[in-house]
Amino acid sequence: MHDNLIVPTQSAYTYPLLIKQLLSNALSLYGEQEIVYRGERRYSYKEFRRRIGQLASALAGIGIRHGSTVAVMDWDSHRYLESYFAIPMMGATLFTVNVRLSPQQILYTLNDAEAEVVLVHADFIPLLEQIKDQLSSVRQVIVLADDQAVAANTLPLAGEYEELVGNASPDFEFKDFDENTKAATFYTTGTTGDPKGVCYSHRQIVLHALVVSTSLCSPREGQRLHREDVYMPITPMFHVIAWGIPYIAVMLGLKTVLPGRYQADLLLRLKQREKVSFSHCVPTILQMLLHGAYAKGIDLSGWKIIIGGSALSPALCKTARYSGIDVFAGYGMSETGPIASLAQFPPGYVPMDTDDDVKKRCMTGRPIPLTDFRIVDAQMRDVPRDGKTRGEIVLRAPYLTQLYFKKPEASEELWAGGYLHTQDVAVVFPDGYVQIVDRTKDVIKTGGEWVSSIEVEALIDEVPGVQESAVIGVRDETWGERPQAYVVAKPGAALAAEDIRRQLLHYVEAGRISKFAVPEADRIRFVAEIPKTSVGKIDKKLLREQEA
Amino acid sequence: MHDNLIVPTQSAYTYPLLIKQLLSNALSLYGEQEIVYRGERRYSYKEFRRRIGQLASALAGIGIRHGSTVAVMDWDSHRYLESYFAIPMMGATLFTVNVRLSPQQILYTLNDAEAEVVLVHADFIPLLEQIKDQLSSVRQVIVLADDQAVAANTLPLAGEYEELVGNASPDFEFKDFDENTKAATFYTTGTTGDPKGVCYSHRQIVLHALVVSTSLCSPREGQRLHREDVYMPITPMFHVIAWGIPYIAVMLGLKTVLPGRYQADLLLRLKQREKVSFSHCVPTILQMLLHGAYAKGIDLSGWKIIIGGSALSPALCKTARYSGIDVFAGYGMSETGPIASLAQFPPGYVPMDTDDDVKKRCMTGRPIPLTDFRIVDAQMRDVPRDGKTRGEIVLRAPYLTQLYFKKPEASEELWAGGYLHTQDVAVVFPDGYVQIVDRTKDVIKTGGEWVSSIEVEALIDEVPGVQESAVIGVRDETWGERPQAYVVAKPGAALAAEDIRRQLLHYVEAGRISKFAVPEADRIRFVAEIPKTSVGKIDKKLLREQEA
Repeated sequence: MHDNLIVPTQSAYTYPLLIKQLLSNALSLYGEQEIVYRGERRYSYKEFRRRIGQLASALAGIGIRHGSTVAVMDWDSHRYLESYFAIPMMGATLFTVNVRLSPQQILYTLNDAEAEVVLVHADFIPLLEQIKDQLSSVRQVIVLADDQAVAANTLPLAGEYEELVGNASPDFEFKDFDENTKAATFYTTGTTGDPKGVCYSHRQIVLHALVVSTSLCSPREGQRLHREDVYMPITPMFHVIAWGIPYIAVMLGLKTVLPGRYQADLLLRLKQREKVSFSHCVPTILQMLLHGAYAKGIDLSGWKIIIGGSALSPALCKTARYSGIDVFAGYGMSETGPIASLAQFPPGYVPMDTDDDVKKRCMTGRPIPLTDFRIVDAQMRDVPRDGKTRGEIVLRAPYLTQLYFKKPEASEELWAGGYLHTQDVAVVFPDGYVQIVDRTKDVIKTGGEWVSSIEVEALIDEVPGVQESAVIGVRDETWGERPQAYVVAKPGAALAAEDIRRQLLHYVEAGRISKFAVPEADRIRFVAEIPKTSVGKIDKKLLREQEA
Repeated sequence: MHDNLIVPTQSAYTYPLLIKQLLSNALSLYGEQEIVYRGERRYSYKEFRRRIGQLASALAGIGIRHGSTVAVMDWDSHRYLESYFAIPMMGATLFTVNVRLSPQQILYTLNDAEAEVVLVHADFIPLLEQIKDQLSSVRQVIVLADDQAVAANTLPLAGEYEELVGNASPDFEFKDFDENTKAATFYTTGTTGDPKGVCYSHRQIVLHALVVSTSLCSPREGQRLHREDVYMPITPMFHVIAWGIPYIAVMLGLKTVLPGRYQADLLLRLKQREKVSFSHCVPTILQMLLHGAYAKGIDLSGWKIIIGGSALSPALCKTARYSGIDVFAGYGMSETGPIASLAQFPPGYVPMDTDDDVKKRCMTGRPIPLTDFRIVDAQMRDVPRDGKTRGEIVLRAPYLTQLYFKKPEASEELWAGGYLHTQDVAVVFPDGYVQIVDRTKDVIKTGGEWVSSIEVEALIDEVPGVQESAVIGVRDETWGERPQAYVVAKPGAALAAEDIRRQLLHYVEAGRISKFAVPEADRIRFVAEIPKTSVGKIDKKLLREQEA
């Protein structure tokens, strides 16, 4: 048996998948297409390409080389889009800093990523000044001034972005290199320990752009992207490279609108004036846009918006649909490129009614091409496609992060058994739709069944007199685990454990939950409050610790 | 400077790009989708996947291993589609034999490719029997009987396809291997010498599927592929893996119709009954379909057809448009994957009138994403985008053949200077549309000018009474070369050389061609037919030989 590999002739171009290749077509066909920043500045793709060369020359001038890491702290801007291309195209790594983290966390990530240069918006100069003395690798700082005054500081400034770029040569030579070169990195803040560095190679970013564009462009009618769309990201560009969609927009030559810092008024004005037709955001932003548009009587119809980050609720989806928005959910994580599934309708599908339409749009979605999207039990066996049996989503795709930076144990845990473990618990329906029902750490394994703590909480919350509840699994010799509930009663409500149980047993009779999901009376505790994390989620980790 | 490569954690799945990955999504979402053979046999994607396993088991049973080559000689069938997957997925090479070549050429290619097993349709058994004694590597032959009697023969038969497949296990384990493994090979018959073997790796086939699907799916409305299309190839599956489109169809889960041997009646019946909406073919086939549909009053509207192989003439395009066909040209070669450009309209483009619509659809097209599509002079400098200056099309794309099998000199010539040389002479317009004006070898150098033989042919074809024409350059002592035309008159048309000349001289006056482009009266020959190559192109090599 020989290996049967193709051995190219000496002069053949073997075509590594590099970010610069996404520009080939964009420039040859869409050189006059526009890139717009906040409606205040606009230039052509040709000028964009010139500035990419200039930015690279400017960075090379202050010592950035293949293998360097350059951090960016900016709102969504044309400069960020230029960084998305220029920095990786030099063979350096683009580090998109999460500006919403605490100063100490930002410090940790800048040091952990070994950032040499930081491109920082004037808004974040005071923050950087505050941690300056503890920065271990940052040599120089470039200010993104946006015509605003820069606060007094003692940072090692290399200059202002527009000045540096304007004075640099556009003729930077972007050489070829290995497609597995690290192109972009950023940090994910899990439930435990320090933020973890995730990274993507050129190959991964190009493949994500190709697979996701195939998925987004291929529906017959609704829920799709096409060449005449106007794109505006409303997921921060520091967050999982804005879902990789800016790379798709440039590859397809779309007019691209960068909104700066998210302000409802400006976003809505840009939507109207620039004729934005394709965006993606978290539910909170969508809510904000709907409120703003309602208050001002702005027409949002024809806007296609993918929702990610948190689940799209049926109520929000319905409001958006009434406003004429073609909204649908997408699913992924920092570690997954990110897009793994999209709630696009199956071919030929026509919703039975509004509820059906809304239900389908709010689901976790259907896997995108080339994605080996499995829902498995603890022995890694696929669960039946019955819409009931729960399992963990595990993935293989051409662009999943291959490791956490300098965290070998967490990396191995992520990839246990050769599949990326999402820790999301889901069911899959016969038509291939997936619905996440919980996180693995929050599932209760009892009597051979998996019980969703989220589901039990939702049902307890429906009991009259209940203000809030939390459910965790606690060890049990007979059942492995049993659910334990913490309940906050409304002021003045006289509630007993049996009231809760009675209601839950009704749901058992109605077939909505398993009888194993109902806590025993002595496992229902009335408490004054439920501990929360800094972002307002129930702190189950703390509850478990208190229990142990 | 460090290399900045990503080093995956040990358990990470690095995801080689393999043909089997195209099935992941198709099976999870479209398991019940149909594959139809001639309208006589139909089965689901699930069954298709089962049969892929069975075919692999059957081939393994007769000694096919990673690195073996398996030849297929069949009309377009479900078996061919099964071979497109099963053979490469085993790590073996699929060799698609051009059944239109002469027996001696077929013999040469089977030996040159070192084919071990041949899957052969009963129609080609006599041919194989004829060359049997000179086959140097073929060990066994599997007959594809299609329920017809198999001619008496002395071939080393392993059995009949359906029998072998039916008895084999579907549970073949398709292992991972290097994505640069040779997946498919076939031969291109150039203008000189023996057929040359071209090959593509798994990586190249997957990338071609992704890039071409992005290009085909992304237009806003017309000239596009979507998830509800029904696909039927009408470019033979032996010809450049049917332009790679079967792989796209399966990746997107499309209903796929395989028409067997091309017969106008059957093709039209399948179009109607199976609701075929997406195809690709050469102009001759389109002509045949239009004639057949006209004769029988069949409605062809809504059929999207890409034309390749030869130029789409405005006359044919116009007829197809009147029939409601969304027809447009595509460009590529055996060596280029094959698709390099498509004559899809630019975003927002609305044709001014029918002529404009037709003109744009007949062009060589606009480059597809990731393609570095250049038109260069002899010094490899880009020609201006003025629609006038001629140059050779040279390419870089992620799926160009990396060599001619066992032909190092021809391989180096193909890739001279690190770009694939197409030998096609073209101009490029400011809007990025490319138009081929000739082959480097077919350009006529006369009186110090380059005259395009293709252009002259197109103008002669417009003369009333002309059915078809061919133009070559012949030696001339005074002018270096002079154009010589071969003209087929329509039945009953009374045509003289002067009729042709008079019309061409009008075009000279109108500034459409140079006066050097008009053949002398004694260089316009009326013939009964024009010789064609096995793929239906004008055989200029033969015309030149006859002339010499």
